Amino acid sequence: MAELRRDPVVGRWVIVNTEDSQGPESFEKEYHHLEQEATCQFCYGREHQTPPEIEVSRPGHTQPNTAGWSVRVVANKFPALRIEGDLNRRGIGIFDMSNGIGAHEILIETPDHKKGLGDLAPDEVFEVLKKYRSRSLGLARDRRFKYVLIFKNHGESAGASLEHSHSQIIALPMVPKYVLEELEGARYYYQYRGRCIFCDMMTQEYQDKERIVSENKDFISFCPFAPRYPFESWILPKKHTAQFSEANDEDLHALAQILKEMLVRIKLSLSDPAYNFFLHTAPVNYEGQERFHWHIEIIPKLTRIAGFEWGTGFYLVPTSPTLAAKYLKEIKLEGNT
Amino acid sequence: MAELRRDPVVGRWVIVNTEDSQGPESFEKEYHHLEQEATCQFCYGREHQTPPEIEVSRPGHTQPNTAGWSVRVVANKFPALRIEGDLNRRGIGIFDMSNGIGAHEILIETPDHKKGLGDLAPDEVFEVLKKYRSRSLGLARDRRFKYVLIFKNHGESAGASLEHSHSQIIALPMVPKYVLEELEGARYYYQYRGRCIFCDMMTQEYQDKERIVSENKDFISFCPFAPRYPFESWILPKKHTAQFSEANDEDLHALAQILKEMLVRIKLSLSDPAYNFFLHTAPVNYEGQERFHWHIEIIPKLTRIAGFEWGTGFYLVPTSPTLAAKYLKEIKLEGNT
Repeated sequence: MAELRRDPVVGRWVIVNTEDSQGPESFEKEYHHLEQEATCQFCYGREHQTPPEIEVSRPGHTQPNTAGWSVRVVANKFPALRIEGDLNRRGIGIFDMSNGIGAHEILIETPDHKKGLGDLAPDEVFEVLKKYRSRSLGLARDRRFKYVLIFKNHGESAGASLEHSHSQIIALPMVPKYVLEELEGARYYYQYRGRCIFCDMMTQEYQDKERIVSENKDFISFCPFAPRYPFESWILPKKHTAQFSEANDEDLHALAQILKEMLVRIKLSLSDPAYNFFLHTAPVNYEGQERFHWHIEIIPKLTRIAGFEWGTGFYLVPTSPTLAAKYLKEIKLEGNT
Repeated sequence: MAELRRDPVVGRWVIVNTEDSQGPESFEKEYHHLEQEATCQFCYGREHQTPPEIEVSRPGHTQPNTAGWSVRVVANKFPALRIEGDLNRRGIGIFDMSNGIGAHEILIETPDHKKGLGDLAPDEVFEVLKKYRSRSLGLARDRRFKYVLIFKNHGESAGASLEHSHSQIIALPMVPKYVLEELEGARYYYQYRGRCIFCDMMTQEYQDKERIVSENKDFISFCPFAPRYPFESWILPKKHTAQFSEANDEDLHALAQILKEMLVRIKLSLSDPAYNFFLHTAPVNYEGQERFHWHIEIIPKLTRIAGFEWGTGFYLVPTSPTLAAKYLKEIKLEGNT
């Protein structure tokens, strides 16, 4: 028997196969062949092939846009949105539109072509997260932008066209629909109960225990009750905070530890699957700080989305989050963190 | 320059590449190798390998569950939801759930393993549509069900695991999120203007002309202003109708003609791409008949969805609907309809 489960924040129903849940062995393995190293523009020595550095971590004796850096942020050569110009919001009959204004940046996480984000040392992941924070703050100063989204595609079936490990940062002139839905669900819950729904979800996870994968001083990771995907995993700060960019260095050290740990668990449990993650934080200048709670959603790409999902917004989830958490927890981490 | 465009019904923003739109040649071709015919359970002579017929079109002298049929509806052997039992809605702390009750049926569109839905004669497509209607009516009589979704997956990357052409019918105990969003958008518009937003969208399409692909007496097809996918195409009845199942035979003949025509245009223009379509109709016993307007959304699978889309609900659309409609319109139909 499957169970219909409702995500408490956005109200999405999913169909979870709880009776006959599928373990990691039932998903097709995706091989990540590294073929681009000889010409990779994200490797040392080819810095001139990308747009110039917007931000960088590099020793003082090295020159901008040369080798020696450890994390590097550049503009995307093929941006989804352009940085120059006005929005020029306008209508054509019943349709609304504007110019495609925004920022689209690439964060190269390591000079090592062969390493993924989860393969980096915790201190190296911390450097990446510091850049997430400083770019979030930097882009929020542009008054045209209402939202800064940070996300990552790993592997071809997750949409990564370049294999060298990188994240993307997109600043948008409107708050994305999925974030609006979370804000709205959280607002409704707060109005009714006077509490943050994400804080309450954590309380529930502690009570149920079975979906928690790991935790440290400041963060918790778990497989949510009503996931869209098998092995979907969320990371939440234990302290109620709406804005990711308010995280201090201590927070980011703890986040680096748990993010790396989760990526290692997912890699080892699921044979290095393709995955996406994205960071949902409050919009720029959001005035409901008490209601929203920033978090990271990691979605391994193990299943194919078809007409039923596209047509409904329901999701068919072959693995229960309880079983997914069990597999992820079981992974032995020695030598990997 | 890209344009940000807003879908007027659900408020989704998409980023359309209007300046440098990509034509059909820029998408990777998907080959549909027919490999399953020797053992296909949807072919003549293997009727006993599927669950028994729920509905069928067959000559009077043939026996149920034997060869001779032209369209056949059977229960899905591996249903997403089970037909037997009670919903038993319940809560666990802040989470809501119920048993996975529903119907999941397969409509085998033709006995010919080699033909797709668009390859059938208009009268054969009409027979398929009549079954869509009768199953919609039949399933709506089960008081546990709030919604009947009809959809189709064609090709592996659209999620079709069986290559023999078929549609799927799923009856659900709750109205799907995406349909709720359309209903809500349409309700809001109606409340504000006293008119159906889909009727107004058609008026706008007639005025703008450039996105219309084709029309007949009763239906119009066009590439919507704010699509999620390149070459996304919608079919709407010209007469305001909320419920697909209220279509009469004359309507279904006209729908068969335009649906087949659109599938042929998409097949020839895009080298037989994988695609999904789904039929969005009003929920069972819906009381806002004046506000909603049933329609079919066809989405060729040409691009990959990545972290940005999953994280935001924005979509990056490389082909403007105007260019897509131009390509689809240009297809010569002689010998194909």
